[in-house]
Amino acid sequence: MIYAKDNADFKARRLRAVKEDLNSGASTLARKTLEDMIDFADCCVAADTRELVEELEDLVQKLLTARPSIQAVRNALLRWSDCLESLPEDDLKAARQEAQTAAKEVIQELKAAQKGAVRACVDELKDGMTLMTLSTSSGVMALFEACHLHGIQIQAIITESRPGMEGRKLARFLSKLDIPTQFISEAQMAYFVPQADKVIVGADSLLRDGSLVNKAGSKLLALAARDSGVPFWVLAESFKHSLIPAEDVTLEEMSEDELQLEPLSSVTVRNIYFDLVPARLITAWVDEQGVRVEFRSLAEMPRGRLLGR
Amino acid sequence: MIYAKDNADFKARRLRAVKEDLNSGASTLARKTLEDMIDFADCCVAADTRELVEELEDLVQKLLTARPSIQAVRNALLRWSDCLESLPEDDLKAARQEAQTAAKEVIQELKAAQKGAVRACVDELKDGMTLMTLSTSSGVMALFEACHLHGIQIQAIITESRPGMEGRKLARFLSKLDIPTQFISEAQMAYFVPQADKVIVGADSLLRDGSLVNKAGSKLLALAARDSGVPFWVLAESFKHSLIPAEDVTLEEMSEDELQLEPLSSVTVRNIYFDLVPARLITAWVDEQGVRVEFRSLAEMPRGRLLGR
Repeated sequence: MIYAKDNADFKARRLRAVKEDLNSGASTLARKTLEDMIDFADCCVAADTRELVEELEDLVQKLLTARPSIQAVRNALLRWSDCLESLPEDDLKAARQEAQTAAKEVIQELKAAQKGAVRACVDELKDGMTLMTLSTSSGVMALFEACHLHGIQIQAIITESRPGMEGRKLARFLSKLDIPTQFISEAQMAYFVPQADKVIVGADSLLRDGSLVNKAGSKLLALAARDSGVPFWVLAESFKHSLIPAEDVTLEEMSEDELQLEPLSSVTVRNIYFDLVPARLITAWVDEQGVRVEFRSLAEMPRGRLLGR
Repeated sequence: MIYAKDNADFKARRLRAVKEDLNSGASTLARKTLEDMIDFADCCVAADTRELVEELEDLVQKLLTARPSIQAVRNALLRWSDCLESLPEDDLKAARQEAQTAAKEVIQELKAAQKGAVRACVDELKDGMTLMTLSTSSGVMALFEACHLHGIQIQAIITESRPGMEGRKLARFLSKLDIPTQFISEAQMAYFVPQADKVIVGADSLLRDGSLVNKAGSKLLALAARDSGVPFWVLAESFKHSLIPAEDVTLEEMSEDELQLEPLSSVTVRNIYFDLVPARLITAWVDEQGVRVEFRSLAEMPRGRLLGR
């Protein structure tokens, strides 16, 4: 009984951490959940492989529903959980080892997929371009870093990303790379977008019809970009692809405390963290296969390549 | 000499107050500047009417350039300053009195114009409607109050209006009126606009081609409303009309401190307070003459009616 409680405590702690992590981008959060699985495969209290698999599967199931707007977390976990079917039944130690190795491999795949998408994107950039983005995405950060490493002189326009203010993290990152950056509130996006040569955002999920789930404000930025004739690009490696239809997607709502309004009768504070950007507002989709300017339904793609489930 | 310094101090204080007043809507600020003229007409150090007029004109000239994005301030001051031409030359006391009376009259005209525009707008509202707005405008507040007084049951969706957060003032006002209200960040506007029957915003200036100068974020809201098929109405009594062409308008930029980012090399904080919403995104213009769904150039209107200069 004491053993089961240890496992339950571990799972509850990890689940809470994932739910409360509102500042990590989707790829970063996917990597973190896999690192959680590595830790749990190591420390999980289990008498044999069967018990280990049961416990690991239980945590996977819980994590799968923890952040419904972020497909990369789901895809990374589902891909990893395939390994649970073939762990050595009679050797618990080896089973723990194999589960950990499999998670490390998926982390490598995540990194490679993002790297491939960044490479495809950086090939399209030129000296003197101004890129605009909102919130923070590890893919977009990697893109800025790649520009810096390849000596491509770009400028940036970024938003603070109220209420989480993760745009400040991106501002500090761009400052270290010495990239000339304008830092604005979300409200100023329509004013600034005509100065950009391209808008490039990351993705929390890319849906089967090519529509995008990303940080709140993304649809406003896409509308402003379209109105000003500025291309709107999505950097979304295949780990972010989802087969969920747009009408079934869950846009997570977070605590109303983040908007810091005192309690007022008849007033409800809303804090929906994500936006749904319809495919018609997107100019190009970039993944590790390259840049696509037309989006065929994900459902039509070969399943081998498609990680989305 | 000491007298001149008194006047200079008064003028510098009032000018600073107007420049630093970032939370008042355009109509409120216009009224406040006229109240400043009432005070100055009373306390201005002057030996005769000629000196009084010189001092008053000097303050008017300074205030005219203090808030270039807010036409109501300019129009109110220009309208009032007409009285300076006919103040009694040989009676300083009577001159002070007349200047004050003239300012009070313009304040009444401001109020009557806003009241007329609100009345025209409230006639178009029905029980059960949801109105969406951003920032805070005394006209839109008066509209909500009129709905309350006439027993029209409406709901509201409002934004916090970062960085000034004047949306909180509106939330408290709507709570007192017991109007069911959803309070959101600017980034969520595209998600919430489909729930609205109408977007109604105030105006800092309405330009000769029907385009609107209003709080940052207004163009994003207009784009989102257009994309979702929600009408976008502007409540702008004639005191807000301007003959400035859109290409010559100044969108004021305020202190970067308001965005609370620490100093970072290569990063520039931008804080442009206003947006320019092109006429093509506006569905209806409401002033004290009624609701117009097509906008003829202000330049073609009879000058008698037009307060804009």
